[in-house]
Amino acid sequence: MSFELTILGNSSATPTLDRHPSAQYLNLLEHHILIDCGEGTQTQMSKYKIRKSKIEHIFISHVHADHILGLPGLIFTMNLNQRTIPLHIYGPQSIFEIIDMFLKHSETALKFEIIRHVTNHQITEIILENALVKVTSFPLFHRVPTTGFIFQEQRKLKRINMQACDKFHIPFTYFNDLKRGKDYMSADGKTYIENEKLTFDAGSALSYAYASDTIFDERVAASVEGVKVLYHESTFAHEKLERAIETMHTTAIQAGEIAKKAKADKLIIGHFSSRYTDLNELLFEAKTQFENTELAIEGKTFIIE
Amino acid sequence: MSFELTILGNSSATPTLDRHPSAQYLNLLEHHILIDCGEGTQTQMSKYKIRKSKIEHIFISHVHADHILGLPGLIFTMNLNQRTIPLHIYGPQSIFEIIDMFLKHSETALKFEIIRHVTNHQITEIILENALVKVTSFPLFHRVPTTGFIFQEQRKLKRINMQACDKFHIPFTYFNDLKRGKDYMSADGKTYIENEKLTFDAGSALSYAYASDTIFDERVAASVEGVKVLYHESTFAHEKLERAIETMHTTAIQAGEIAKKAKADKLIIGHFSSRYTDLNELLFEAKTQFENTELAIEGKTFIIE
Repeated sequence: MSFELTILGNSSATPTLDRHPSAQYLNLLEHHILIDCGEGTQTQMSKYKIRKSKIEHIFISHVHADHILGLPGLIFTMNLNQRTIPLHIYGPQSIFEIIDMFLKHSETALKFEIIRHVTNHQITEIILENALVKVTSFPLFHRVPTTGFIFQEQRKLKRINMQACDKFHIPFTYFNDLKRGKDYMSADGKTYIENEKLTFDAGSALSYAYASDTIFDERVAASVEGVKVLYHESTFAHEKLERAIETMHTTAIQAGEIAKKAKADKLIIGHFSSRYTDLNELLFEAKTQFENTELAIEGKTFIIE
Repeated sequence: MSFELTILGNSSATPTLDRHPSAQYLNLLEHHILIDCGEGTQTQMSKYKIRKSKIEHIFISHVHADHILGLPGLIFTMNLNQRTIPLHIYGPQSIFEIIDMFLKHSETALKFEIIRHVTNHQITEIILENALVKVTSFPLFHRVPTTGFIFQEQRKLKRINMQACDKFHIPFTYFNDLKRGKDYMSADGKTYIENEKLTFDAGSALSYAYASDTIFDERVAASVEGVKVLYHESTFAHEKLERAIETMHTTAIQAGEIAKKAKADKLIIGHFSSRYTDLNELLFEAKTQFENTELAIEGKTFIIE
């Protein structure tokens, strides 16, 4: 099963000719997800061959225009395309007010249901969970209520060490418990074997955290600690620190610091101000703090592994 | 002074990779105007080198998402760019509710004033007039309240026939009256000369009418009668007449009929359904009714002369 992220938009508020406002497509173990939905997302999806019909979950970090203006149009297109399966939207209450206003004024009754999940920007909470995946929202620190999201596999099951199980004559009916980490105790209570002797470790669960938009704040690093891949906004170079603080955004150096503090494996920076024509300036800065940094280039797919 | 129309978006609700939702830029005798503002208009303006700062008037036909989703982002970009000059917006009351909701939720106080002109889709009325130009809104017939717009020069003044005026010894203090079409009567009441003997005709005033979106309705032809250039939506080919009626749109043949009935000089068709990859099918159909038809191709500039 895939865990892959495709960048659809990497621009901050003002788009450029080749950079679009925030939007990402995430295939999270065959859960098809949009993260933010800036103006032009529909067209970016077409360009990168992502079918609109398969999107089941949309996560909205906050209701600044550059993160949401693509959403009403996408909803209307889904409706024109005769969608009937429900669409889950996660975001602040205000995004639903905006959707409702568009529906009201366009006098449109959707053929599918929008299932509303209101996020709370003041706490960390699980907002989607099933046997395969878990999504958590966490506070960001911006000019309006904003949350980040952590997308992760559920903890992987341990793998059975067949040779050891054979040796100790473990009945296969115990295998599910062993995969979940339980030690072995025979039915008659006479034989006890520690789980580690009967299984292999599965490695850590994969995870991806999305942090946009926010001022530099170490609480973000704490929220995403140990994440595999961290996307962090990096609107400005550090010489624009004052502007970053004023607008509650982050500089590239600061994004690197957050990744370092969070002990992430990889950092992806995005949400670039339109003033930068050469993004390597931002990449270079982030790398001074955190070497394994990459630019969120539109159309690029990151495999989370 | 220029009277030029540039097409920024020619798509109906669902954009394609190379066609964007409705938006047009009109230079009306140095009045810089946007007509509708679909998703992606900002980027299209950058692509075709139309400066956002010079736009002073935005006309919104109706509040379907594909005609307005570019507007909040454009307003925020103008604000980020430190705009201070007022922006006139003409449209139904609902567009202002939508703008207000975006401003509220983004907690943004604009640095410039939005001057609101609420249109009335039930009557024809002048909504902008000065010494040079006049803009009139007129009813269209769509699923939500919709208006078209006629943009025109004020009636041109007649030109003085200097030779004739010399011959009849007309004092130049009478010239302004002559230009406005008055006959000549000498101060002593003894000499009377008809205006036509002393002036040349100025030709008719130039005009451009925008009609999108609407079901086929002859009242539209009546509203725009005698217009120089008519833009009329042409969402479908005529074989999709039933779908056109159901969605309250027009077919290419019908658009040609309206142009013929209106006695326009030229017809431009647009608002094409994403199902058409070859637009010549629509062009051919319209031409069966009205030969001087052109396609609204994005980036193309039509000089109204």
